[in-house]
Amino acid sequence: MSNYEAYFQGNRDEHLKELKEWLAIPSISALSEHKQDIQAAAGWLADALTRAGMDKVEVHETKGHPIVYAERLRAPGKPTVLIYGHYDVQPVDPLNLWTTPPFEPAIRDGKLYARGATDDKGQLFLHVKAVEAILREEGELPVNVKFCIEGEEEISGESLPEFLKANKEKLAADAVVISDSSLLEPGKPSICTGLRGLCSLEVTVSTAKTDLHSGLYGGAVPNALHALVSLLDSLHDEKGRVTVEGFYEGVPVLSELEKADLASYNPDERKLAADLGLDSLYGEEGFSFTERTGARPTLELNGVWGGFQGEGTKTVIPKEAHAKITCRLVGSQDPQKTLDRVERHLKANIQKGAKVSIVPGERAFAFTCDPSDAMLQLAADAYEEVYGARAVFTKDGGSIPVVATFSNVLKAPVVMMGFGLPDENLHAPDEHLNLDNFDKGLLTLVKYLHKAAQA
Amino acid sequence: MSNYEAYFQGNRDEHLKELKEWLAIPSISALSEHKQDIQAAAGWLADALTRAGMDKVEVHETKGHPIVYAERLRAPGKPTVLIYGHYDVQPVDPLNLWTTPPFEPAIRDGKLYARGATDDKGQLFLHVKAVEAILREEGELPVNVKFCIEGEEEISGESLPEFLKANKEKLAADAVVISDSSLLEPGKPSICTGLRGLCSLEVTVSTAKTDLHSGLYGGAVPNALHALVSLLDSLHDEKGRVTVEGFYEGVPVLSELEKADLASYNPDERKLAADLGLDSLYGEEGFSFTERTGARPTLELNGVWGGFQGEGTKTVIPKEAHAKITCRLVGSQDPQKTLDRVERHLKANIQKGAKVSIVPGERAFAFTCDPSDAMLQLAADAYEEVYGARAVFTKDGGSIPVVATFSNVLKAPVVMMGFGLPDENLHAPDEHLNLDNFDKGLLTLVKYLHKAAQA
Repeated sequence: MSNYEAYFQGNRDEHLKELKEWLAIPSISALSEHKQDIQAAAGWLADALTRAGMDKVEVHETKGHPIVYAERLRAPGKPTVLIYGHYDVQPVDPLNLWTTPPFEPAIRDGKLYARGATDDKGQLFLHVKAVEAILREEGELPVNVKFCIEGEEEISGESLPEFLKANKEKLAADAVVISDSSLLEPGKPSICTGLRGLCSLEVTVSTAKTDLHSGLYGGAVPNALHALVSLLDSLHDEKGRVTVEGFYEGVPVLSELEKADLASYNPDERKLAADLGLDSLYGEEGFSFTERTGARPTLELNGVWGGFQGEGTKTVIPKEAHAKITCRLVGSQDPQKTLDRVERHLKANIQKGAKVSIVPGERAFAFTCDPSDAMLQLAADAYEEVYGARAVFTKDGGSIPVVATFSNVLKAPVVMMGFGLPDENLHAPDEHLNLDNFDKGLLTLVKYLHKAAQA
Repeated sequence: MSNYEAYFQGNRDEHLKELKEWLAIPSISALSEHKQDIQAAAGWLADALTRAGMDKVEVHETKGHPIVYAERLRAPGKPTVLIYGHYDVQPVDPLNLWTTPPFEPAIRDGKLYARGATDDKGQLFLHVKAVEAILREEGELPVNVKFCIEGEEEISGESLPEFLKANKEKLAADAVVISDSSLLEPGKPSICTGLRGLCSLEVTVSTAKTDLHSGLYGGAVPNALHALVSLLDSLHDEKGRVTVEGFYEGVPVLSELEKADLASYNPDERKLAADLGLDSLYGEEGFSFTERTGARPTLELNGVWGGFQGEGTKTVIPKEAHAKITCRLVGSQDPQKTLDRVERHLKANIQKGAKVSIVPGERAFAFTCDPSDAMLQLAADAYEEVYGARAVFTKDGGSIPVVATFSNVLKAPVVMMGFGLPDENLHAPDEHLNLDNFDKGLLTLVKYLHKAAQA
């Protein structure tokens, strides 16, 4: 292998200049006034892929935002790696909390500050430049490479799932590589092999046809708030377990090996509590922090409201009250079945005189992938050679529905090789990317493409 | 006596026009942005009292909202009747549930719709017009009359209690007459001889120092909403009893006679539930509707809120959550002691990892008065002559702290002659006053002032 360290060092200023140019395009997918910026960011990426040396670069228009596809399939008999990422970014408010404007990329203290710096333009850019580097230095890629990049990740759009299902052949690959996550901490790489699924619902409890005066009726009629808090409290027992019948169906029992893996990166729980301003953590009894977030399902109240919220006292018995609930799912828990079960529980436990109704929201299955797969082990090797520390295989508590979709549709292992850090303010003001991981990420990806050739 | 029926019929349009003008002033005492409207409503009343023929009309500024005082003491040797009422009104949210705007009074189906129509501008207006009618028709009042009208009833302000204590001589009376309650049902007048006391508090539960992402932390950290619903649910047992230790101290055991009295005006509970749009009533087991509202204390949630209330899903673990609570008190229950007990219960039952704090609000003792007093019996006579049904002496579930204060400070019987109806949506959208009781109320009050002269 050539001296890629020297190559990337020599091209560093130019690379950062290019990335800043891309980051300056405010491709916020959630806001329709940025429709043209979204198009510009997709076009910029297509140009960069062409410049990098990809053979075939296509911008597919969709009902939503374009999907950028590229391929270079000149390694017959070698595996095919499909690279996924997204060029859309989160909104930027509150703008006044940014040290420098979100779309005027700036480097301070070895960090590149801009919306999208780590989520995900900055991380995706590493793949474009790794491919370009190999083609410039060696003339050909060691594996077949496809890019499939979307512009609706931040809005959970339907365009990519539809595109995947309609183009299974075209997108067929031996591994899907995604850089949209983070190291455990500086110098400690990780590969995520599990993400939780999700389902969400809104609950409404209603009682009388109007609000009633608590003097005239108080104590003698159902109060929607009493019925709601009693109902919501019935969803957990005193050990923090969800009481909904059948809720835990499909939740895998942790093996001793998995427990050891999860224990290996469990934080100091007392320190974590103190850092969060808490006297103590709280959750399902008998499980550690990483077990609770990575391997156990949850039912969480995200919002509750009803009655009077203003200043002072209002002696009202409210006629309705509401709650927003999300469940995080693991293993083979079925999001639709879970919604049905929660609904049955709510209807069975509602207080006399009150009624309950639900509006279902999102549904996504959990994702898991076998860390012993060669394409994952080779990724851990690549990290080890660059970082001097082998990547830990982790389970993340969040939900990225597209990961399960890739895994289900393409039947290929998904290799989540992140180069961000957990404190890089993604979705918040002063989002940034540590340039140390920018440099190491480029080298790790070049190594990975070479290693993948041996799989 | 002149033909007051003809008099009020002839002046009906003009009276309603005047009342609508007053109701159009949004004199919401709880909201500081309505300070000027409060002043305007007090000024309007003072003018109306002057026009009615009261001798001396004063607007007393206070630390809060003004007190309007008026007197006409030209019946030597005759009793003095002091009329109390309030010109302030409740807030109006949720505004979208009003058929017509709360401060654009409108008549539909023989009902006058506006905030304050029944509570209490509409009922108070009857006294002003009854006095005016007698003066126009007979030239003089049969008794001495004083008006003492406040603007802080809906916020349980301290100005009136202070004014009463500072002006005992000026306000001395043989009876205090208040029209701020309701008939039992159309055609069934009542005089309230008992009111519940009150204490109120706001509860805040807090957990981490910031909101947390439910993917990264869900299931492993305390959620302020979970802690709050669990805490609030712990305040009642499955029989609807309040579980706060010592809560029922001072609650009188009902005698057989009292039970019979309460039973005599207990509504058809199944019909009441249906009228309210309920499958069934709900409350402390073993007590009837009138017992629960008239003779039993309550602890009621008036508002609960925390976390995300917007459209769609936000996967947030909120760092704080809130509730507003009022307790209705009976017998000798001490409002301050009750607040202390509720606070102790909340602190003892808060979930691990969460904190709870309270801000106490109002405090008022319960009130009772002897129905055999002549000034009360004469009021029942007046009702009987106009309604064809003698007023029933009842115990009401509401709290009018000032009633206990009047009773204690002036040592005079308090005659609560209400002309509202229980379903007139006081404190709720579409508050209204039935105009049949507007008409009968004027006649009843004219009769009462004449009857009181014989006491």
